[in-house]
Amino acid sequence: MVRSKVSHKLVKSLLAEGGITVNGSDPWDIQVHDERFFDRVLREKNLGLGETYMDGWWDCRRIDEMICRILKNRLNVRIADGLKALFSDFFARLFNSQSKRRSRIVADRHYDLGNDLFFSFLDPYRQYSCAYFNGTDDLAEAQKCKLDLICRKMNLHPGDELLDIGCGWGGLAKYAAELYDCRVTAINISREQIVFAKEWCRNLPVRILYCDYRNLRGSFDKIVSVGMFEHVGKKNYRTFMESVHRSLKNDGIFLLHTIGGNESCVRCDSWFDKYIFPNGNIPSIAQISKAMEGLFIMEDWHNMGPHYEKTLLAWNDNFQRSWPRLKNRYTERFKRMWEYYLLCCAGAFRARLIQLWQVVLTKYHSTQPVCRL
Amino acid sequence: MVRSKVSHKLVKSLLAEGGITVNGSDPWDIQVHDERFFDRVLREKNLGLGETYMDGWWDCRRIDEMICRILKNRLNVRIADGLKALFSDFFARLFNSQSKRRSRIVADRHYDLGNDLFFSFLDPYRQYSCAYFNGTDDLAEAQKCKLDLICRKMNLHPGDELLDIGCGWGGLAKYAAELYDCRVTAINISREQIVFAKEWCRNLPVRILYCDYRNLRGSFDKIVSVGMFEHVGKKNYRTFMESVHRSLKNDGIFLLHTIGGNESCVRCDSWFDKYIFPNGNIPSIAQISKAMEGLFIMEDWHNMGPHYEKTLLAWNDNFQRSWPRLKNRYTERFKRMWEYYLLCCAGAFRARLIQLWQVVLTKYHSTQPVCRL
Repeated sequence: MVRSKVSHKLVKSLLAEGGITVNGSDPWDIQVHDERFFDRVLREKNLGLGETYMDGWWDCRRIDEMICRILKNRLNVRIADGLKALFSDFFARLFNSQSKRRSRIVADRHYDLGNDLFFSFLDPYRQYSCAYFNGTDDLAEAQKCKLDLICRKMNLHPGDELLDIGCGWGGLAKYAAELYDCRVTAINISREQIVFAKEWCRNLPVRILYCDYRNLRGSFDKIVSVGMFEHVGKKNYRTFMESVHRSLKNDGIFLLHTIGGNESCVRCDSWFDKYIFPNGNIPSIAQISKAMEGLFIMEDWHNMGPHYEKTLLAWNDNFQRSWPRLKNRYTERFKRMWEYYLLCCAGAFRARLIQLWQVVLTKYHSTQPVCRL
Repeated sequence: MVRSKVSHKLVKSLLAEGGITVNGSDPWDIQVHDERFFDRVLREKNLGLGETYMDGWWDCRRIDEMICRILKNRLNVRIADGLKALFSDFFARLFNSQSKRRSRIVADRHYDLGNDLFFSFLDPYRQYSCAYFNGTDDLAEAQKCKLDLICRKMNLHPGDELLDIGCGWGGLAKYAAELYDCRVTAINISREQIVFAKEWCRNLPVRILYCDYRNLRGSFDKIVSVGMFEHVGKKNYRTFMESVHRSLKNDGIFLLHTIGGNESCVRCDSWFDKYIFPNGNIPSIAQISKAMEGLFIMEDWHNMGPHYEKTLLAWNDNFQRSWPRLKNRYTERFKRMWEYYLLCCAGAFRARLIQLWQVVLTKYHSTQPVCRL
């Protein structure tokens, strides 16, 4: 009881620093339904916050804004200060979380969840990555803008051999083949996605392969990787860049589209690691640039982070609208997990803790392409 | 004599790999006037190549293209392989080459050389940094494009307090004050430049101060640094970023305009270090991004390296045209040094060994400005 009172007070006062009131009336205030919330959050930090939401111990009308306020005020760091999650650091140093075998974990747990779930909130091109709201507020339009931006930054021409590393459901491969007359090789390690992509791109010059990027063969005019580098793991950044370098023709162009962090971190958020992206790692500029030294020239580095906030909010809107169709196959706890995931990410982008980068790279001695679009 | 024959053969065969023929007829071929050239180059590498040119031991119609070919084929690295300039590494680790006292060396030796020299080849805004040839081939126009690009990327508004770190002769301060109605504080440690800038900006809201960036005081809406970071030195990158962070308002914008290298190097070229930029250091993306972690969000990273090649060639053209007016005050050896400097740099940009970066940075939690221009 004494401990409980202390945790009440501590958690409430920390939240108050972000302008968040327990049981207050602002949209970002939290409504606590179960008093055990305070102990759990104090003990388990981010993991406890997420899990107690999944368990229905609290609600909030604007989780995105609540998370944004927590992150802006670094309340998450301060609640963790007393404890220091040394062990997860320790293990990260010992193991390569993204060995070829372990890379399958995210493929199995996340990307093979079920196409019906993803398609319930994605655009018609099934883009599970940041859209580009350039003159539009419509997700489908914005995803087409993104696809076109990528194709134009790579100076895609008819007949180009394009390699797509981590192709998702094949939307970019389809777009490039149909609209830019390219021949596409697209690789992936999610079996669900591969089955769909093969069918979807059936009558196009698109090869969909089950292949780890470390086993790449062939030589390509252009290489693109969208929303996959986050799963590569910092121990493999150099290997990834070397694989791309080996597979790219001398005058080729490589476009890397990835979430990025302002700082070089060791650990991923524990809730996200457990429920959403096992073994994920958000790279920093320093990590990416170090990994490409001696291999590539950086031609342009575009930060389009604010577009990801909009993308995530649009996904959540779609997801909520689709829920009646999904609820027979997914539990209420799953729904809460999924909305918490999408809205937390939106909050993190709004707080500007994370960014979305498009980086255009060429090999040494190349001419600079027109890629600043 | 035996040694001499070996050095002849070795140097010739290395140059031949870059398609450079000794006493050949292509514009990038070299005409050797003094046979001691081969020994010197083999023994002293880059330093010997530059010094023997200054001494008139060889000529070349297109030094820029010759240097480009040497760099593209890494002939410079390979000639150095046998020797390894360990000592300069060693000293770089022991001393901070850019302590406040030692920072003065470049100010005294380079920037105080004489305004007549610099003004003989610069544009009317006296921009001793990369121009932006956006829809023009004219240097003066391109420098105005550059100035305007910087002002627009910083979202300069009337009344903004702008800090210019390393202001040169005050051209950017003048431009921003006159065309964007800003109040400018501009700092420098070259006395010749300060005297000129004070006079040039006399009737404008511009303060020109003799001040090291480490001694900065005040709080500014916008901060800019153009062509000065190259003199900061890698040991001071973090200090530089901290100084800027401390001096920038929370919703401010910082624009860094600097030459950059594809790789994180320890040493500067020995000829450049001795004759042109004592204690210079060309930063890498990894070094810059590491130095700003925890301080800034990277909003945009623009690589405009190809524009520097054009700028340097325009400077050399102007310098050659002005030589009749300068020759009474500078020696022939100085002329050869200066043209070698400008053309080597042009060649290094053409070989894409070095880049020109404009990086826009904001503080944590800022809204992303429109800066991708």
